[in-house]
Amino acid sequence: MRVLGIDPGTIAMGYGIVESRNEEVALLDYGVLDCPAHSPIGERLSLLYHGLEQIISRYYPDAVAVEQPFVAKNVKSAFAIGRAQALAILVAANRGIVVCEYTPAQVKQRVANYGASSKEQIQEMVRLQLGLPEIPWPSDAADALAVALCHLGEVHLTNLLGGQG
Amino acid sequence: MRVLGIDPGTIAMGYGIVESRNEEVALLDYGVLDCPAHSPIGERLSLLYHGLEQIISRYYPDAVAVEQPFVAKNVKSAFAIGRAQALAILVAANRGIVVCEYTPAQVKQRVANYGASSKEQIQEMVRLQLGLPEIPWPSDAADALAVALCHLGEVHLTNLLGGQG
Repeated sequence: MRVLGIDPGTIAMGYGIVESRNEEVALLDYGVLDCPAHSPIGERLSLLYHGLEQIISRYYPDAVAVEQPFVAKNVKSAFAIGRAQALAILVAANRGIVVCEYTPAQVKQRVANYGASSKEQIQEMVRLQLGLPEIPWPSDAADALAVALCHLGEVHLTNLLGGQG
Repeated sequence: MRVLGIDPGTIAMGYGIVESRNEEVALLDYGVLDCPAHSPIGERLSLLYHGLEQIISRYYPDAVAVEQPFVAKNVKSAFAIGRAQALAILVAANRGIVVCEYTPAQVKQRVANYGASSKEQIQEMVRLQLGLPEIPWPSDAADALAVALCHLGEVHLTNLLGGQG
């Protein structure tokens, strides 16, 4: 199973693609789609949308996992996150790809087994789970990889529970 | 000049198309794109996106005007409004159409000459300006028409000021 994780933002959109292979998890790619902060919003959303389309066309993920905070710094930031999420959800839905949303607490629980982990702890767990020499950078990309790993963990757990049923 | 106004929502998205003809304003169409409230978010955003694409393909507006609140009932509602706005902005930007955002206070000021007008006063002004026998219904459509009229008013004012310069 191949998962594209998204850390949504309208100036920088983190992405990370991981794949489960038996008991292993492989890292395929990660990075940040960014666009000039002061360019018109239409231009920015269009750039990010087409950037996400290219990533999906290259990697054909089976699922897209998007971070869904329950809180935001302020209303302006919530509008911006909502806009960025919409792009990721839309690109996936237009290709018939499953979209799952995870709260930061869910990501922390699945990736570090502890819902109140710090950002640094999560990033270190991402590094360990993917067998990397260093924490992926920039942090938006590391956050996106965490959401992707969260989805793999969720699917794995669901399969385990299904196997016991 | 033809303007598509959008009242953004991920369950009901109001739209209204108006056109300025010399000193007159003509109403071309209005309505609401709605989708099942409990369907998956990907399905809903995809439905709304393609609905907006159809409207733009039918009317070829010169500009798209989107309501941009500064406040929201709560964070969840801000995320939802942000998502709906993103669709409208993206559809327009992908076609090279200008996108303008207006706060509710700006809409009130331009449509009723008073930034603290009530929702009912704005809807009545929409009815009067478009020469309609009744207030457009549902109210999401009336709100979308108000944003479209706001943009026409803004452009008219800019032209007047430009003419004086």
